[in-house]
This record gives sequence, structure tokens and C-alpha cells, in this order.
Amino acid sequence: MTHPTHLPYGGIPTFARAPLVDPSGDWHADVAALGIPFDIALGFRPGARFAPRALREASLRSVPPFTGLDGITRLAGVTFADAGDVVLPSLEPELAHDRITEAARQVRSRCRLPVFLGGDHSVSYPLLQAFDDVEALHVVQLDAHLDFTDVRNDTRWSNSSPFRRAAEALPNLFHISTIGLRGLRFDPEAVAAARARGHTLTEMREVDADFIGVLEGLPMGQNVYLSIDVDGFDPAVIPGTSSPEPDGLSYAQGAALMAATARRNHIVGLDLVELAPNLDPSGRSELLMARLIMETLCAVWEGEA
Amino acid sequence: MTHPTHLPYGGIPTFARAPLVDPSGDWHADVAALGIPFDIALGFRPGARFAPRALREASLRSVPPFTGLDGITRLAGVTFADAGDVVLPSLEPELAHDRITEAARQVRSRCRLPVFLGGDHSVSYPLLQAFDDVEALHVVQLDAHLDFTDVRNDTRWSNSSPFRRAAEALPNLFHISTIGLRGLRFDPEAVAAARARGHTLTEMREVDADFIGVLEGLPMGQNVYLSIDVDGFDPAVIPGTSSPEPDGLSYAQGAALMAATARRNHIVGLDLVELAPNLDPSGRSELLMARLIMETLCAVWEGEA
Amino acid sequence: MTHPTHLPYGGIPTFARAPLVDPSGDWHADVAALGIPFDIALGFRPGARFAPRALREASLRSVPPFTGLDGITRLAGVTFADAGDVVLPSLEPELAHDRITEAARQVRSRCRLPVFLGGDHSVSYPLLQAFDDVEALHVVQLDAHLDFTDVRNDTRWSNSSPFRRAAEALPNLFHISTIGLRGLRFDPEAVAAARARGHTLTEMREVDADFIGVLEGLPMGQNVYLSIDVDGFDPAVIPGTSSPEPDGLSYAQGAALMAATARRNHIVGLDLVELAPNLDPSGRSELLMARLIMETLCAVWEGEA
Amino acid sequence: MTHPTHLPYGGIPTFARAPLVDPSGDWHADVAALGIPFDIALGFRPGARFAPRALREASLRSVPPFTGLDGITRLAGVTFADAGDVVLPSLEPELAHDRITEAARQVRSRCRLPVFLGGDHSVSYPLLQAFDDVEALHVVQLDAHLDFTDVRNDTRWSNSSPFRRAAEALPNLFHISTIGLRGLRFDPEAVAAARARGHTLTEMREVDADFIGVLEGLPMGQNVYLSIDVDGFDPAVIPGTSSPEPDGLSYAQGAALMAATARRNHIVGLDLVELAPNLDPSGRSELLMARLIMETLCAVWEGEA
Amino acid sequence: MTHPTHLPYGGIPTFARAPLVDPSGDWHADVAALGIPFDIALGFRPGARFAPRALREASLRSVPPFTGLDGITRLAGVTFADAGDVVLPSLEPELAHDRITEAARQVRSRCRLPVFLGGDHSVSYPLLQAFDDVEALHVVQLDAHLDFTDVRNDTRWSNSSPFRRAAEALPNLFHISTIGLRGLRFDPEAVAAARARGHTLTEMREVDADFIGVLEGLPMGQNVYLSIDVDGFDPAVIPGTSSPEPDGLSYAQGAALMAATARRNHIVGLDLVELAPNLDPSGRSELLMARLIMETLCAVWEGEA
Amino acid sequence: MTHPTHLPYGGIPTFARAPLVDPSGDWHADVAALGIPFDIALGFRPGARFAPRALREASLRSVPPFTGLDGITRLAGVTFADAGDVVLPSLEPELAHDRITEAARQVRSRCRLPVFLGGDHSVSYPLLQAFDDVEALHVVQLDAHLDFTDVRNDTRWSNSSPFRRAAEALPNLFHISTIGLRGLRFDPEAVAAARARGHTLTEMREVDADFIGVLEGLPMGQNVYLSIDVDGFDPAVIPGTSSPEPDGLSYAQGAALMAATARRNHIVGLDLVELAPNLDPSGRSELLMARLIMETLCAVWEGEA
Repeated sequence: MTHPTHLPYGGIPTFARAPLVDPSGDWHADVAALGIPFDIALGFRPGARFAPRALREASLRSVPPFTGLDGITRLAGVTFADAGDVVLPSLEPELAHDRITEAARQVRSRCRLPVFLGGDHSVSYPLLQAFDDVEALHVVQLDAHLDFTDVRNDTRWSNSSPFRRAAEALPNLFHISTIGLRGLRFDPEAVAAARARGHTLTEMREVDADFIGVLEGLPMGQNVYLSIDVDGFDPAVIPGTSSPEPDGLSYAQGAALMAATARRNHIVGLDLVELAPNLDPSGRSELLMARLIMETLCAVWEGEA
Repeated sequence: MTHPTHLPYGGIPTFARAPLVDPSGDWHADVAALGIPFDIALGFRPGARFAPRALREASLRSVPPFTGLDGITRLAGVTFADAGDVVLPSLEPELAHDRITEAARQVRSRCRLPVFLGGDHSVSYPLLQAFDDVEALHVVQLDAHLDFTDVRNDTRWSNSSPFRRAAEALPNLFHISTIGLRGLRFDPEAVAAARARGHTLTEMREVDADFIGVLEGLPMGQNVYLSIDVDGFDPAVIPGTSSPEPDGLSYAQGAALMAATARRNHIVGLDLVELAPNLDPSGRSELLMARLIMETLCAVWEGEA
Repeated sequence: MTHPTHLPYGGIPTFARAPLVDPSGDWHADVAALGIPFDIALGFRPGARFAPRALREASLRSVPPFTGLDGITRLAGVTFADAGDVVLPSLEPELAHDRITEAARQVRSRCRLPVFLGGDHSVSYPLLQAFDDVEALHVVQLDAHLDFTDVRNDTRWSNSSPFRRAAEALPNLFHISTIGLRGLRFDPEAVAAARARGHTLTEMREVDADFIGVLEGLPMGQNVYLSIDVDGFDPAVIPGTSSPEPDGLSYAQGAALMAATARRNHIVGLDLVELAPNLDPSGRSELLMARLIMETLCAVWEGEA
Repeated sequence: MTHPTHLPYGGIPTFARAPLVDPSGDWHADVAALGIPFDIALGFRPGARFAPRALREASLRSVPPFTGLDGITRLAGVTFADAGDVVLPSLEPELAHDRITEAARQVRSRCRLPVFLGGDHSVSYPLLQAFDDVEALHVVQLDAHLDFTDVRNDTRWSNSSPFRRAAEALPNLFHISTIGLRGLRFDPEAVAAARARGHTLTEMREVDADFIGVLEGLPMGQNVYLSIDVDGFDPAVIPGTSSPEPDGLSYAQGAALMAATARRNHIVGLDLVELAPNLDPSGRSELLMARLIMETLCAVWEGEA
Repeated sequence: MTHPTHLPYGGIPTFARAPLVDPSGDWHADVAALGIPFDIALGFRPGARFAPRALREASLRSVPPFTGLDGITRLAGVTFADAGDVVLPSLEPELAHDRITEAARQVRSRCRLPVFLGGDHSVSYPLLQAFDDVEALHVVQLDAHLDFTDVRNDTRWSNSSPFRRAAEALPNLFHISTIGLRGLRFDPEAVAAARARGHTLTEMREVDADFIGVLEGLPMGQNVYLSIDVDGFDPAVIPGTSSPEPDGLSYAQGAALMAATARRNHIVGLDLVELAPNLDPSGRSELLMARLIMETLCAVWEGEA
Repeated sequence: MTHPTHLPYGGIPTFARAPLVDPSGDWHADVAALGIPFDIALGFRPGARFAPRALREASLRSVPPFTGLDGITRLAGVTFADAGDVVLPSLEPELAHDRITEAARQVRSRCRLPVFLGGDHSVSYPLLQAFDDVEALHVVQLDAHLDFTDVRNDTRWSNSSPFRRAAEALPNLFHISTIGLRGLRFDPEAVAAARARGHTLTEMREVDADFIGVLEGLPMGQNVYLSIDVDGFDPAVIPGTSSPEPDGLSYAQGAALMAATARRNHIVGLDLVELAPNLDPSGRSELLMARLIMETLCAVWEGEA
């Protein structure tokens, strides 16, 4: 007889039913989740503030370990913790950044791999600041947009600018690979700046035309931070996002890109941002994105095995 | 300078931000919440399975203590715990009942006042079984319906029957006062059975016609279990419920009835049932019902002061 | 042992689980429902085309007979039939009118009381044409609006004009009592025309100020056609309607007005219009309005007993 | 001049506007629909109880016969009946099973091909019991999940177990082909049991990699029962389901698989399950699934021609 | 023959179909609308950024002049302009404040009465700054909450603090009357500060107990700025708001309070804030609040007549 | 320093922030938008009346000029105007047609390329009448359906008939190419009539099987009117439409077809119809379709360069 377990809608929704810990407490885990319910830096349809909670709830349908149809069991023995959400101020971006960076540092120091549940994409900047000691840090970004704009609508801290700010602040931020780019309009200055830094800009059309080539062009053997903007996916797949762009990644493409990156590199952190659960009454956006995180974790531990 | 606190959408949603405890663990609190995400016994529109989580989230806007406009601070020093949800089976009602009763007993033995977050109304039967040792137990039930039917649609365990089953099983269940009754159709056998037991059946028209009289007719000095079916309220006030009936309680009426009952009696337990958050996109149903629980708790502690 | 019955979401949704009949078939019933899924004559938010189906589904929670808490059984022995929906054209208002009138005549000739499930309020005009033989026909209309406008947005057939057209076409249309009037704006020409005909215009403020007086002022001993525009009700009570007006009837007020009218007069027909189920995700609008029809039928048969 | 016909939102929603019959009545039809509004055996998001009604409404946009762009007319002369829904109890699974099996037997004996409108997937077990006399019965199952688990969350009757129970109960259940399998987690015991029985487990990746091969590997010349779990489809295509899994079947793939199976075999029955219309406000889930049933019927009659 | 006019869903949605003007342009009107789509200062559920557009659309059902059932025509000859929305930055509160104040000054100087369409309640602070020259400025605030908190969640600029900031910044801000106060929790420091300044704090219970008394206690003969927080209304009436509080104003109460204030004083400006149209799928929240603005304008011009 | 600009939810929603003009006024622009909020001619789920407003709002995320990732700037210097919506009657189709044709003529005479924002597909008939002077007019229609039916549900003016009526009325309507056809049922008479006229009927299966071939088969060097029925797209891509058909165009396919047609021909007008924003709570339907219009405009100006 097995121990009874909750149905997915039962129980307090910590990430993957992990024990709830304090970021500054005395604990250690292989994987630790930290939520950043912050969405005042986006410029269109809010709701990403509700994503950490939605992702935790959705994660309860995908609690490891996982035995596949192939009989292989994944993430067995990998330990999880949930460090809750960063305690955020209203409105004060710089204070919010400090708190995010501090909590991320605390969590990072207590786990093998922190998983950050955003939040709009602006949070990647303070999150990356917690990785300022990583040698030759690579960012692999799934995204329809470049997010390398200097100033948008009079602010330097919007969800269009996280990697610009990070590139300025972090001398160790060696490279950014952005995959899934598409759309009618780009900020020419941002594109030029990213190209001047040598970033790898992979358009969605390249993903569709030569997926093997794109996989082979992923970084290898690097210290990689994964930043998953859910608008990298096709809006038919993930409708719950502020600024959908058509003709994006299928789930399989996105999952394969994340898994391949994870297997080939040393993953130091992962964020998932721009999920707006309020815009998808079907609920599949958070269910699929919670599963994406789990599949990526499977690949990290495969890569490490 | 004050300690920073979460905005309502931040943090892991335990009830009123109480520490998460195991029902069988080593803890004590004044108030302890226990969720029962069970709704397969209702006969119309499901969703009450999602209510424990929705009520916890909504409770984050109403975390005690509360200082009123009158300057009085309520629930200061009252301690809270959240015992999570009962781990429920799929489909097996008797096993579900056993688990609910067992968890309720565990929680009850560790706190002054357990707060049960339903679930459909059928859960009141196994919950009341955890109070089989209370002398001369009175139930005060806010409800549009009697819920004293013997058999409905071929089952004895539906949300139409919890008090019938409890009356059969619990010799100590001395009296039931049902307030808010209304509707086109009643089960004559159930009405006769309730009247034969001497239950107090208070129609909504009496509440509207003579509210003071109804308040004065509430039990006094008894051991009372409060059972709040949210369809006791007007559906304009609480739209999120399976079986709305027009012309129900205003929030103020319901809150006053609960507070008066709490002040005049010894409250041994409280459940809130039949909340279907999926039927109210405005979200006010859970926000108001979480506040109702808090206001009732305020009255309990005022009564005890 | 009783015969097993459907839960409300089970079974083919005919009105009150009545047998489905053809309007021109060989049948007779006390009450017969006819749906008119027509809403192209309204000028704001469509959806009333979905009301006949929604009302039938909602009626399955209120299937007579009804035994009240008072022990009295209502509508026992009263037979029901469902004549389906009028087969309507797209776009051709005059053809639609002819079909509506013809089906209404057929249904009327086969039942004691036809219940018409609208549709926007424009359908009351062709429905009333099926009552051109009723002596001294009185209409009692629950409505926020007068619906006596001559031409609106270039058409004479909109949902603002049904009673104007009926007054022109039907010499036997003796009187109209409109109850629940309110709003910022009225068509002065329509008000003057209604007053010139001696219509009784009862404002919502009179209903609130002197409900007994309004009840006493209802027609008595007349041949009455009831026309219930759901926007007569407060939008907090019935949110699912195209053009809500604040401070309308409570359910109890509306039900009492309909019941009193039914008891004091000979009711020849009843329509319920302007219900837009798509605008109320809580579903209470159709549930309450299906019950209102049933309560009105109870009063008709009480009045006749 | 043609006979006027209803628009899709007009008329009582029987399946494909078929006459409504009693399962035990005196009738015969080529195709007969039977609804099973039962969803208490699923473990996540309810709503499949509403699917029979939603599928009937959606079928009104796809009423045969169908003349294609190719000028060929399909399903001409094929007769339809709608046997309504099984009258189900609340909560009592075994009684529900008995009623489902009995109604399915009655319908089956009166038609060439019964179409069962679920309900969650647990209903396939009692439905298959009505086919215990079919020689060498093959099941072809479209599904993301195996549904061959012995016990899930303490019950043997959940929507994870229908085929396990059927395999135990029906000696004539010769083979099961499951197509569309995918996901992070499988029940190893269930996979082993299915493989031990020689079931054909076709993963979604095989469908994508070699669709022709999968089509060619379908059974041929067998007595086949089709069981369509709508989560076999991609959630972008069919969002209205309890447990979506990414990277599923396109509509075209699913329809081609069903049509090919229908043309190559003798189809004895068909069920469509796990449709949750409440989770898809766009309404396309039921519209597409009603059409899928019709396309499959076209292929059955083509196969038989 | 009359000039054809748009149905409410037709035409570009300027406020009351007024001409669109530039705040700094060469125009003059009696009433001018200015939108402030800013909601990053609220602490719970966003959406007020969408309110200016929703209110404009809703205003198209209430375009003056208005002839009532009483035959009186209101707002005839009163001219309207729509000055569009303030061009706001992302995230930069001080810059946003400057822009809001500047636009409000521009609009104010070009019209008799500016109507400000918020936005969350934080915008009242920069709006009031545009009235720093008004002698003995009185604010009459409809609100469930005091909004006089010094610091909330680490910021001084949230929607809990607009009147605190205004009181600090504006020596001419003579008095604040807040009507509709209710709720479990108040900030004691804020209450003390408001009382120390002599503010009139009118609880909802006073409104219900002695409405005439509250009306008579309204300011008279003053320069009044009206600030309507829609959560002053009951959430059954106006569900579309971030932070609903039960037992609020009926529409009639709120409209009467605004009209009485308008008739007895000189109204210098009006804002309507905290409307979240995304939280009310019925759409009645914006329809009623647009009408409330119009009714208040009627009273202003009656008062001036 | 750049001039501050609105976020997409700020400002009065004219198309692409173009100046608002009167159709009969004194203006000229390269591109002019005209809305036709008319949807009473469709036979299923209404909502297209709300599309002009939704498309304008969505266009605010795609305001030209556009600099792509390729560094090329498109639509620079191209001027836009918004002529508002046609002032439509209720119910009177012929009057509506006259007004639509007249406004379209006025707009057409004042711009290089009119963009018509529907409305159901019936509006293409009166729109095309404004092009009765174009020599050898070709229509390229993206659509799942043929829309060439003579009479549907007793009317000749429904959204199934616009091109039949146009073919009858316009001697200069030389050819129609319909791309994206699919579905179970076609009107044989309509198919025969279209084939008799030599129309090009391109099924969706051809698009999928030989996209290059379809592109090459597009007209070349003609005067082309583009009519985009959004149900040409897959409902997973564009859920917001009355009558979805599975297996439709991807966004990329539809955009490429429109762009290729635009580059190879002289585009005289463009309409986008059958968008029902009320059926897609994610909002992506209008966001993608507004972008499609912009991409098509880019191709028109590329073709002209």
C-alpha cells in the first residue's frame, strides 16, 4: 500500500510540493524556487505578478521524480525547496531590485540550481546581479523580443531593458544568446548594441528552417543562466502573456532548446518570466510552463549524471 | 521602520499567513485552518474543490490583527496555524469521510477553534463526526437549503444530506438552527424530519421582516458549530456558488448573525462550504467569505474576552 | 423506491423536462414554451439569441411540482410542453415577425398559457399579434425602458419599439402598464405618446417608495399579457443583459409584482426577453429568470384555483 | 423553395437534430447518441459533465448529410437518433456503471453504431462492458495518457483506469492500440501491464516522425471500439480539457487516424471523453470535436459502402 | 428626419462623443475629460490602467443632453471636449506625477469642469496639485478606504496615500470629507492624522442609518473636488475593482451624495478611480460609473442654473 | 531626447494613432481606416460588431514605421488617417449597405489604400460596390468558406453571400481567388456557380501540400481587393471568430499569402472581417490581425517602391 497523495488541487501550493523555507534560513536543496511577483515594469497587459502562484499550483501536476514511457526515472533523489516569494515594495524599483538580488543570492548560496518564477522580464536584471561572481556567464534567452533597449517610455528599468542593464553592471556577463526573435519592429539602437557586444541573435525563422543547426550552435561547456520569456513560444501554445507575437516556438522546440542547452553546459540559474495567467482561462499556459521547468531540470541532471 | 510585508498576491498562500503545520504534528494554535477540497457530492456545478486554495489566497487581504476605525484592535495575540488540506482519495466517499474526520480530530485537538475550508456541504457530516464528544452540540447553519434530505439522486452522501447523516450518527447533536431558508422547492420528508427533531427553521423572509427577533432567537450559552453555506447569501453578493437562490442574506446580515452567535455561545468549530471560485470572475466571493471568517473569529474572541 | 431522475446538467434541455412537441402538432398542455432566438434588433450587446437555450437549461433546476417550506404543493397536475424554437431567418425582420406570430398562434391554440422565451424585446410585437383576438388586452411590462419609441437608429422594428408597433397594429390592445422605469434619458415623443394613450408608467422610485401602493395599482380582472424585460431587475441581481440600468427591481420585488398580477387577472401569455447569458459567467441570470417564470406560473394557477 | 431550417443556436439541441428517443423504446437508427454526463472520477479540473450538452449544441453546426468541395455527399440516408443522457446517480460509482452499461446495451441493440458523449474517461469501462459479446474486440484509443493504471488516489474507478478494468472484466477485449502517448510521467506498473498484454503503445513522437507508418500500423479487419480522449489533441487545438499535455495531435492527424481506422475495420462503438467546455471560452473545443465525430462517421459509412 | 447617429459600439470612443483635443491646444469647453491610465501604484489586482478607455466606451450609452421621464432636459448646451490621456512613462512615479499635474492644469484652464478618468487612486495626488490655487479647497471622497496612509509597502506614492501627500503639499487643501468608510482594518496612524486635521470621516453604517443626516452634513458653498473611488460602492453593484469591500453604497446612494454635493457647492474638478474593467465581464461597472459621472454633471449644472 | 509616447493602453484608439477624419472631409492620406461595426448578417455567434474598436486598440501595439531586425525601415513616410466607423442603422440591411458603400467611396477617394475593419463578411458586398469603377477587379479572399451562396436561411444578404451579390452587381468583378477552403460541407450550388465563373478555389490542403505552388499561382499585375476572413486562419491561432474550422492557415502562411499578393499586384482595398473579440479572452486574435494588416501594408509599399 502506498502513502496517499494529494490530487493537484489539494494541499498548499509550494513548488513541486517542496518544503517551504526562508531564503536566509538553514537549509540546502538541489533545486530551490523563488518567486518574484513583480509586473509594474511591463508596458502593456499586467498579470505576471500572479505567475509565481500560478506556476506553483501548476507544478503540482508535475511533481518529480518522473518515470517516462521509456522506463527511465528522472530527478529521483534530487531535492527541492521553495523559498517563497521575494517581499517586494510597491512602486520602488530600486528597492525592489535590491530585495530581488539579495533573496536570489541567499537562495543561490543554498542550492545547486535556483529556479526563479517571474514576474515581468525586468526582474532578470536584479536576478543576474546575484550571479556577478560566475566566471564568463552566458545567458541563453528564449524570447520574441531582444529586451536590450536602453530607455523605453522614459525608464531604464522596464521589461525591455533587463539585459542592457545587466550588460552594463556585470563585467562577467560574457555573452547572450537570444533565440526566437521575430516581429515587425525592433529598436535599432538595441540591435546595434547587442551586435556590437557580439550577442547571438537567432531569429524564429532560423529555428524553423534549421533546427538542428540552431541546436548545434548553442553554447557548450559554459556557465549558463537560462531566461525563458514565455512570449518566445507561439501564442497558440502559451496564450497567457502580455505581448504575444505570432509564429513562435512550439512547446517541443522550446523544450528541446532548453534541454540541449542544459545538457551541454553548466546551468547556474533559470528564470521564467512574462507569464500572465489571467489572460488564459484555459489554464494551459502555466501547466505547460511548469512542465517546461521540470523538463529542463531533468536535462540539467542528465547533463550532470 | 517596520518589517516589510508581502502584498496580497505575494508569498505562499497559507491561511492568514499562518505557519504551515502537519495535522498530526506537534503544534498548538488558537485558530487552525484545514482545507477539504472535495466537491464530488454536489449535484450541479462543480468548483468547490478549488475553494480552500481560493480562500487562503483571499485571506491574505485580511490578515489579523485588525484595528478598526473605532481604534479597537481585534485578534491581537491570537495565534493561527494552517494544517493544509486533507489528503483525499478520488471517488471513494467513505474513505474520504474517514480521512476528513481523522484530520479534523487531529486539528481540533491542537487548537482552540478549527476553521474548515470546504468543499461542498457534504463535508459537514464527516467534520461533525470529529465533534462527537461535545456535550449538547448545536449547529447553526447559514443556508438557503435545509440539507436534511435522506437520499438524493440515489445517494445518502450528497451535499443535500450532511445534517441528516450527522443527526443519525451523533447522539450528542442536540439541535440545528438553519437560517436563510428560501426557495421554490423543499423535500417534504426532510422538512418533516427536521421539524420532528425540533430544529429551528428560519426563513429568509423572517430575517428580512424581523432581524432583531432572529438575532434574539439565536442559541445562547451553547456549544455551537457554525456551518456557513455561501448560498445562504444573496447571489448578487456571492455569485460563486453551485446553486444560487435569489433574495438571500446581505453580507451585513450574515456577518451579524455569525457574530451574534459567536458572542453568545461557545464556538467549537466553523466550516465554510459551497464556494465555487470558478463561477465568479470578479473574485469577490472568496474575498468576502475570507473576511466573513475573520469577522466571525473577531466575535469569538470578543465573546471570550 | 423512486424513479431515478436526472441531475440538472443531465438530459436534453427541454423546458422543465416537458415533452418536445411541434407547434403545429397534435398536442395540448397547460403550459407550453416557445423559444424565439432572435437578437438582431437590439442596439448594443448581443447574446439574447442564446437565451432560449439557457433558460431551458436553467429550468432543469426548477422542475415542478414544487412543495414549499409551507408544505403546499404547487403546479401539481399542471402539464407542460416544449414547442421548441421558432425557425427564424437570418436578417429578414418581416419574415421573422410572420414566423413568430404564426408559431405563437399555433402554440397558443394548444395550451392554456404560452411562455415565450426571447430574444430581444422586439419579439414582443409579433408575439402580441398572436393575441389580436383577446378582448381588452392589457400588457403588464417589467422594464427599465419604455420601448415605445417610434423609430430608433433608422428602424421601426428595434427593441425600442415593440409596444409602439403593437399599439398601432392591435385595436384590442387596451392598456400597457410599465413598471420599473428609470434612467437618465427617455424619448420625449415616446413618453408623450404613451401618456396620450393613458398608459400607466410606474417609475422604479415609486416601487421603492410605496410598494404596497404599486401592487394595489396593478390591473385587476383583466386579460393580461406579461412581458418581462430582465433589465427591469437590478443589474447586480441579473447582470446578463444588454443595457443594464442601476437601481432596478430586486428579485423579490419583481416576483411579487408578477405574482400579484397573475393572481388578480387572467394571464393570457408571458414573455421573458433581453436575457444575455453570455454576459454573466456566474450563470445566475438564467437560473433566477427560469425560477421567476415558475413562480409566476405558480401564481397563475393559484389565481385560477 | 427549401424548407426553412434552424440556425445553429436555434432549436432543442439533440445530436445532429436527430429525434429524441428513449434508450429502451421502440426505434432503430444507423447512428444513435447517448450522453454520459459523469465527471467525478477525474482528478483535476471538472467540467466533462457538461460535455454531452456542449457536443450536442456544437453538432448543430455539422448536421449531415455533407457535400464536400469534391462534390461527394456523405452520410446521406444515414439515420440518426438521440437517446438522451444516462440517468446517473450522485456519487455512487458502481450504480453509475450499471446504469451506463445498461443504457449502452439498449442503445447498441437499436442502432448500427452508438456514439457515446462523455464524461470523463472512466466511463469507457462501463461502456465497454456493453460490448462483452463482440468477438475479438479491439480498442483504438486516442490519448495522451495510458489510462491503464490499477489504482490511483485510492480508487480503482478513476479516469486513469478504465482500460485496466475493462481488460480484467472482458475476456473478449483482445487488444488495445493507444495513439498519442506523451508526457513526463507514466505509471511503470501500468506500462508493464499494458506491454505484457501486447498492447500497441504509439507515442506522439512516432506520429510526428512517421505518420504513414502509424496509419499503416493501425488494425485492419477487426471489430474496433474507438475511444477518443480529447487530450490526445494538442491543447492549442482543444484547450477544453482537464489535463492538457503539450505537443499533441493536430486536428488533421486525429481525424485522419480515426478515419483510417474506421475505413479499415468494423467500428462497433465510439466514445469521446474528457471534453471540459467550461475551460474553453472560445467554444472551439466542442465545435471541433463534434465535427471529428461526424468525420469519423463519414469514414465508417465510406468503409461500409 | 433626424441625423443618423452611432449605436454605442460604433465610432471612435471619445468621452460622450466629444471632439478630441490636445490638452495644450486652443479650445474651450464646459466639460473636458482627461484620462490617466496609471495603475502601478495599487497593491492588489491591476486593471485600472484600462479604465479610461472603458469609461469612454461606456459613456457612449449616456451621451447628453438627457431628457428625463419628468420631461426636463439636462446638460443641453453644455459643451464637452476630450483631451485624451496623459502620456505616461513606464515606472517613473515622479515623472508620471509631473505629467499628470501638467496635463490637468492645461485642461483645467480650458474648461469649466475637468473630469479625470483614472487610474488607481494614487493619481488624485498629482491631480489635486493642479488645484493649488483654489481657495479653501474641499475634497469630497467616496471611498471604502481612507487613503491617508503615510507609507505602505515601503512607498509614499501608493494608492493608499494620495490625500496624505496632497495634504502635505497643498496649503490650500482645507478639508476632506470621506464617505463610505468600512472594513476590518484601518491604519491607526492615518486615522489619527486625518482626525487631527479635522477631516470628516463618515462610515458606511452612518450612511445606512441616517442618509438624510449625511446629506445634510455635506459641505455647502465650498470649492469642492470630487474624488470617486468606485470601491465606495457595494461590490455587487460595481464588481470591477481591485479591493472590494462588502456592504457599500448602492448606486442610488452614491449618485445622491454626488448630486447633493454638486448642487450645494462649486465643483472644481472630479476624478473617478480604481475601476478595473477586466474584473467585471458583465461590463456593468463601467456602464454605471460613466452614468454616475453624467448624473453628477447634471447636478453641477442644475446647481449653477 | 525623444518625444514621450503613449503605452499601447493609453490614448484615444484611432487606427495606428492616425488623425481622426470625417469620411467626407478635406483630407488625404496614403492609408485610411474605416470601421463597419455590423454583424447582424452572421448566423452563429455574434461579436464582429466589436471588431473595429478592438482592431484599433490592438493596432496601438503596431504603429508604423517599423524597423526590422534586418535594419530595414518600413512604412516610413506613409501617412495614415482614421475615418471612424460608418454610421449604421439598426436592422435595415439595404440602408446599411448604402451607407457602407457611400462611406467607402468617400474614403477611397481620399487615400491611396482604404483598410476596412469589419464586421461580418456580408459587408464585403457593399464595400466592393465602392470599387465598381476599377478595371478588371480581382478579389483575393482568405477564407475557410466560399461565401458565394445564393440564399441562406431565407436571406440573400447574409455573410454567406457577399461575393455572390458582388458578382451579380459588379460587371467589373473579373475574378475571385479564394484560399484556405476546408470543411465538411459546401453549398453545391455555390461551388458550381463559382466554378462556372472560373474562380480559383484553393483548398487548405493545397496550401499545406504545395505552398510555393500556391504562392506562384496568385494573381499578378492585377487590380486586387484583399478580403481577409479571419476564419481562414487556424482557430488555435485566431480563436476569436464565429465559425471556426480546424486545420487552417498559420499566421505565417496567411501573412505570406497577403504579402505576396500585395507585392505582385496593385492593391485597391483591403477588408478584415469576422473577428469576434468577445470569443477570445486572451486578446491575441485582434493583436495578430492588426499586425497582419500592418504587414500587408508593408508589402503594398514594398511592391510600390
